[in-house]
Amino acid sequence: MPDFASRIESVREAMRRRGIGLLFLPESSALEYLTGICRDIPNPTESNRPGDWVAGMYLGLDAGPVIIEPRMGSDRMEAQLRDKPWVADLLVLGEPDDYTGALLRLAGQLRGGAGDIAVGERAWAKTVIDLRRAAPEAALINAAEIIGPMRAIKDEEERAVMRRNARLTDEVYEAILPRIETGMSERDIAWLIDRAIAEHGGEFVSFHTGIRIGGGDRQREGSIHDHLTDRTLQRGTALAFDFGMLKDGYCSDFGRTVFIGSPGEQHRAVYDLVIRAQAAAIAAMRDGQITAAELDAVARDIISEAGHGPHFIHRLGHSIGKDVHEPPFLLDGDDTVLRDGMCFTIEPSVFMEDGSFIRVEDVVMVTPDGGENFNATSHDLRVLDL
Amino acid sequence: MPDFASRIESVREAMRRRGIGLLFLPESSALEYLTGICRDIPNPTESNRPGDWVAGMYLGLDAGPVIIEPRMGSDRMEAQLRDKPWVADLLVLGEPDDYTGALLRLAGQLRGGAGDIAVGERAWAKTVIDLRRAAPEAALINAAEIIGPMRAIKDEEERAVMRRNARLTDEVYEAILPRIETGMSERDIAWLIDRAIAEHGGEFVSFHTGIRIGGGDRQREGSIHDHLTDRTLQRGTALAFDFGMLKDGYCSDFGRTVFIGSPGEQHRAVYDLVIRAQAAAIAAMRDGQITAAELDAVARDIISEAGHGPHFIHRLGHSIGKDVHEPPFLLDGDDTVLRDGMCFTIEPSVFMEDGSFIRVEDVVMVTPDGGENFNATSHDLRVLDL
Repeated sequence: MPDFASRIESVREAMRRRGIGLLFLPESSALEYLTGICRDIPNPTESNRPGDWVAGMYLGLDAGPVIIEPRMGSDRMEAQLRDKPWVADLLVLGEPDDYTGALLRLAGQLRGGAGDIAVGERAWAKTVIDLRRAAPEAALINAAEIIGPMRAIKDEEERAVMRRNARLTDEVYEAILPRIETGMSERDIAWLIDRAIAEHGGEFVSFHTGIRIGGGDRQREGSIHDHLTDRTLQRGTALAFDFGMLKDGYCSDFGRTVFIGSPGEQHRAVYDLVIRAQAAAIAAMRDGQITAAELDAVARDIISEAGHGPHFIHRLGHSIGKDVHEPPFLLDGDDTVLRDGMCFTIEPSVFMEDGSFIRVEDVVMVTPDGGENFNATSHDLRVLDL
Repeated sequence: MPDFASRIESVREAMRRRGIGLLFLPESSALEYLTGICRDIPNPTESNRPGDWVAGMYLGLDAGPVIIEPRMGSDRMEAQLRDKPWVADLLVLGEPDDYTGALLRLAGQLRGGAGDIAVGERAWAKTVIDLRRAAPEAALINAAEIIGPMRAIKDEEERAVMRRNARLTDEVYEAILPRIETGMSERDIAWLIDRAIAEHGGEFVSFHTGIRIGGGDRQREGSIHDHLTDRTLQRGTALAFDFGMLKDGYCSDFGRTVFIGSPGEQHRAVYDLVIRAQAAAIAAMRDGQITAAELDAVARDIISEAGHGPHFIHRLGHSIGKDVHEPPFLLDGDDTVLRDGMCFTIEPSVFMEDGSFIRVEDVVMVTPDGGENFNATSHDLRVLDL
């Protein structure tokens, strides 16, 4: 089990250094990281429980953390806190109750009249408005500036879970490939994958499964950023997969492109280019030797030299852990030095003029000797002869 | 098509009345309501695009609205804005770019040096921190105080979409009932439903499908608030459904309870009680005649008189529209007077000691003559003789 008490103490040290007297985190991946309290998965449309904008963790320098939880959900929270002595107290609110009053009282007690206020970066604006009332003179600080760098370096236990999740994701891919048929739509294929993720123990997808059928004699409708359409699979098209699972609190994120019928020379060359760009980036992922922006450039330069720079339209990758996208990000402008135990997606791509989207994606960890690829699926060009 | 220009002018009138000089909305259901720009559905874990904390709509009293959009996604935004002349301008940011600088410049221009700042209530804390820098002296106002009451009363077009979605949800229920078998787990049944929602044209579920198998000779593990477990369906259990779809920008939310094998007297009595409580509440949904809290009491009193008050453990219902949970809420303390065109779930329940969760739920609109039920599924007790 992670040493949550020590994670909380590390946060307090950073608070002291920066003059922060109170830190608030809503129920979130960051709270899960600090305390072991499981996050909720958001509904596709906005939902709430009475009073839930004040729900979350309140941490003072010498007091707390205290959890505020609305009554609807409090039995589950009580069960979770039974084995978490590093959480000092639980405050359950009624339905209805004076929610803002409860926040103001607790924030005032824990802050003790001094220091700025740090807030989880996706806490609701409504919560921030209330927190400001608790200390109008305090500055507001993004709590991710403190917790983000801690989360970026995965410990042994986190690495083991992420390796295992990556291998399960490889297995999902091998399980669904034989079930692909011409005539299936992007949505149909996504259903196959989502169901297989559940069958392999995934608790949720880590992001909405993206399937892209490109090339052939018809243009795919919609934006490059639309993850699913009703376009169907035919011979002569390229099929790009992008999916991942959430299991035991950590994410996977995986991508491959296969060809339906043997591809032409141009597609083979681009496929090879993308694989080479990825391999070069993975080799360069050495502890302390390169920045996030420089790693992006390693892959981008190879693709640009082949004349496809304008067709590689997104960052090389992102850190991944409890969330599918975490800082740092592999793009121009992010000068974080890469360190042993940081885990990134490495996902170069070329978006071709016929609509084929050729991408490979693995989760890779920085080590002293270059990247350790958590995925084991081959990078060889694969043709489905349907 | 809704009159978006007039919705934006209504917001500006409210801003003038309240001394607000700038309003910011992230991409959200509220922005979709005001402008017709489709929201994105959140991923199960946190994801982002470079710069996306500044993405959204900035509205001044006499200028804008201007949309800020990161490059990744801007082609889709451009396509959406082609037929939306009520949006004054689109500002596409690069990758990387000076995101905070772009926010500060635009917010400064549109606000014109005066007035408070209204923010969508689920805008990120990180965004609020930046907006505060644009005008440290301005108060922060929850934009939902302005837009929530507008959204609460559905116009003719919205009612038509919500009626249609409710009927489609009825059809999903009829389609999956014959496919229920003993031995299926809560997760299996949820898969059936989610797939049927997609087959009936639902773009997403409006919330995570909830299935609860209660009663019988084993206690269900987990909290009353856990929506899915591996518990399996057996004779002598009660099966409670809670699901809905998102289609054309609006939600449905539906619930029924069926019995696997003929239920005993006590279960029959509770079923009848829940149906009577719902019917009384629906009859009382008359324009201008009752408040949200009073409507909750209509149903709660009936259940309490029968001795089950402590087993009705949540609010009677919530408003529903673009989001599954919208204000006002049917619970003690919400004194909103109900008005013609407000749409609510009416979902009384009794959580029985053997773990059976007996609930009925429909979407019902307030009219001058009492509630109009958008769902058509029978309330008669249903036994599956599996």
